[in-house]
Amino acid sequence: MNVDIFGYLAAILTTAAFLPQLLKTLKTKKADDVSLTTLIMFITGVLSWIIYGYAISSEPILIANLITLILNLLILISKLYFSKTLS
Amino acid sequence: MNVDIFGYLAAILTTAAFLPQLLKTLKTKKADDVSLTTLIMFITGVLSWIIYGYAISSEPILIANLITLILNLLILISKLYFSKTLS
Repeated sequence: MNVDIFGYLAAILTTAAFLPQLLKTLKTKKADDVSLTTLIMFITGVLSWIIYGYAISSEPILIANLITLILNLLILISKLYFSKTLS
Repeated sequence: MNVDIFGYLAAILTTAAFLPQLLKTLKTKKADDVSLTTLIMFITGVLSWIIYGYAISSEPILIANLITLILNLLILISKLYFSKTLS
């Protein structure tokens, strides 16, 4: 059995995992329980993965982290937007 | 400049990022806005990274994902515990 399947499964799951959080936030119009510090640290980390992936020319690292970056930026923007408009 | 610094920075940030979420959940005793589907998908993905890291003998992948797994399991347990005891 090829172990790469676990690598691809891992990359897909840890990337797509943020879509339900985004949808939940847009649906409930709040994300007060979601840590702002976690979002900022995670987004900074994902940006570092993108720089690293670009530097070592790793397309999988680049693609997975670009999607993760977009999803988490949208979660961050939604959280901030809903906390401002509803307070 | 060594590009590995971005890889290490990325690994540390995307791992440590979950500590503030755990601390916030323990402090506020709620994580209703945190998506359960996201947590389950993310934990399954991190488990896949651990299997992959073990299979290809990558210590950095193993260590970073073991810490991420523990933090996210604790967030999941806290979320479920507080949603049960307070409902």
